[in-house]
Amino acid sequence: MSDPPPGKSAYAASGVDIDAQERGLERIKRLARSTVTPGVLSEIGLFGGLFRPDLTGVAEPVLVASADGVGTKLAVARMAGDFSTVGRDLVNHCVNDVLVQGALPLFFLDYVGAGKLEPDQLAALVGGVAAGCRENGCALLGGETAEMPGFYQPGDYELVGFVVGLVDRARILDGSRVAAGDVLLGLPSAGLHTNGYSLARRILFETMGLGLRDRLPGDPQRRRVGEWLLAPHLSYLAALRPLLAHPGLHALAHVTGGGLTDNLPRVLPAGLQAEVRFGSWEIPHPFRLLQEKGDVELEEMFRVFNMGIGMVAVVDPAALAEVSKRLAEGGQRALPIGLVRAGDRGVVYDLGLTEPDGD
Amino acid sequence: MSDPPPGKSAYAASGVDIDAQERGLERIKRLARSTVTPGVLSEIGLFGGLFRPDLTGVAEPVLVASADGVGTKLAVARMAGDFSTVGRDLVNHCVNDVLVQGALPLFFLDYVGAGKLEPDQLAALVGGVAAGCRENGCALLGGETAEMPGFYQPGDYELVGFVVGLVDRARILDGSRVAAGDVLLGLPSAGLHTNGYSLARRILFETMGLGLRDRLPGDPQRRRVGEWLLAPHLSYLAALRPLLAHPGLHALAHVTGGGLTDNLPRVLPAGLQAEVRFGSWEIPHPFRLLQEKGDVELEEMFRVFNMGIGMVAVVDPAALAEVSKRLAEGGQRALPIGLVRAGDRGVVYDLGLTEPDGD
Repeated sequence: MSDPPPGKSAYAASGVDIDAQERGLERIKRLARSTVTPGVLSEIGLFGGLFRPDLTGVAEPVLVASADGVGTKLAVARMAGDFSTVGRDLVNHCVNDVLVQGALPLFFLDYVGAGKLEPDQLAALVGGVAAGCRENGCALLGGETAEMPGFYQPGDYELVGFVVGLVDRARILDGSRVAAGDVLLGLPSAGLHTNGYSLARRILFETMGLGLRDRLPGDPQRRRVGEWLLAPHLSYLAALRPLLAHPGLHALAHVTGGGLTDNLPRVLPAGLQAEVRFGSWEIPHPFRLLQEKGDVELEEMFRVFNMGIGMVAVVDPAALAEVSKRLAEGGQRALPIGLVRAGDRGVVYDLGLTEPDGD
Repeated sequence: MSDPPPGKSAYAASGVDIDAQERGLERIKRLARSTVTPGVLSEIGLFGGLFRPDLTGVAEPVLVASADGVGTKLAVARMAGDFSTVGRDLVNHCVNDVLVQGALPLFFLDYVGAGKLEPDQLAALVGGVAAGCRENGCALLGGETAEMPGFYQPGDYELVGFVVGLVDRARILDGSRVAAGDVLLGLPSAGLHTNGYSLARRILFETMGLGLRDRLPGDPQRRRVGEWLLAPHLSYLAALRPLLAHPGLHALAHVTGGGLTDNLPRVLPAGLQAEVRFGSWEIPHPFRLLQEKGDVELEEMFRVFNMGIGMVAVVDPAALAEVSKRLAEGGQRALPIGLVRAGDRGVVYDLGLTEPDGD
């Protein structure tokens, strides 16, 4: 190996440029400052971010933490040449994950890894994270960027997020209050959110040979492939926050990897199952397209994709009218998509041809 | 593109196997259970991990959070076919980052990304994380694994970590107490820790043509290249924890990316600089080898590598004897490597030839 070129440091020649990283860090600091909330005691640049939670009125503070990535939605962002949206997806995903336990987000940290961090791409990624943080009232408290030459494919970026939320122990939602007869209220998703991209990409790009700018065949909304694939992962915080203390809200399930099939059982006590009724909501056209063109079993569709439902609220039937009304007043659509009933823990899909018989 | 093979789901054929992931998750749950501390309220598998901090005697609780990766030390782990050590590196790195602000770690979350998650590799990675968590008394509260086919090079793994610690506001270490005359106590590192791997790999493997099993030429300790490169990132928690409340401990600086040059100034108030004296500690042979064979400027060496110092304690000279004694009693080596003095904020390296003149 030859010596590093004159004027270029050995480390830069090995693929890592600390000075360029520091300039990028300045842009990140400005973005982080746009997300500051009253609890923030520090700026990015110290070793760790400092946050003083407001514990007023919280009898027994419990921290709820979650880590997530956005999967190969990043590959779609790269194809589209637009890394500005996936940061919001990530924050919203993480915020939903603590929300379903009853917690409100306090702060967020991100990690961006790449073979080479291009300043504009990095600013787009972190800009999306900061936008998501602002929308959720959550501080971007810190993060890490890593240049790992030869580790990532050129142009690829990894994006990982961590959120910490706070809930009073008596207000934790953990499914223990779920009972037979509870209604499953489905809150619509905006698209794939952040799950199932490997399969969706294979079907759309390889099997069907589509490009990002092509329209989804037969889609009544005439969406383009890229537009649908990059549709944001929705945050349900604004809609559900006013209901977290409502005694009729028994549980929340975030529909992520594993779909309704794997996520609903997480909030079901033993001896209860979720009966989800086909036809109770309209499965968005792009999911039906994926199923048909990918020749995917319906059972698998419900484990890989959210099928149009991004969040499920498990609601006491006595509170259904009020909860529905309050969601509607907040502009949040919600549809009854099934019921909780006695049975082995799991999800049973009812085709709507026969009445449930308790089996 | 042909249909998925019989008996194999479409998603599995697209490179993601949810069932295999769930089996891997069972192993991860067992590992996480080995790290449980009294604050843990949840098991991995819920949407977020729940942790109830013990706030007894804490007047004003402040959370300190940090995110990190282990850089291309992962590439060395892969070459060595051993992913069992990098998890500990990651936890120790994160723990040090909150420790230097005066905080003790509460919990940790990890993220493992790969093109394909091999169960044994995943268990080795998370096993290392769990070991690190146990050693630091920190719960592994949750995490995320992601299979991203085509995104990572086959066999490569990304590992990201996130720690949350707790400190009483009055006990935060932020450098504000640092004063002229303070002594810099250097705590030895065990090797590269987690920084400078891209350059070190280039010099050792490409320029010098060495392999992992070769001995480091001229090393008095006769270490092998792989042994030195995979030496653990040390946690300084056990050594420094008893001193966090000591009024003579003015600041701590974790020597990570940017070296002494960029990390010491983070705890220096304006108008103060750190004078680091060459010869006050012995720079370990492998760093000198990297400098010579890589033809790296000394200035750059101190920005890319820790040069044998993993942590710096900034200590009131009046407390130096007692702090040194208590570190020694705890088995922690520490050496005075310099002083704080008036001057532009930054680090000045004193070659030991002349007395400092305040310039």
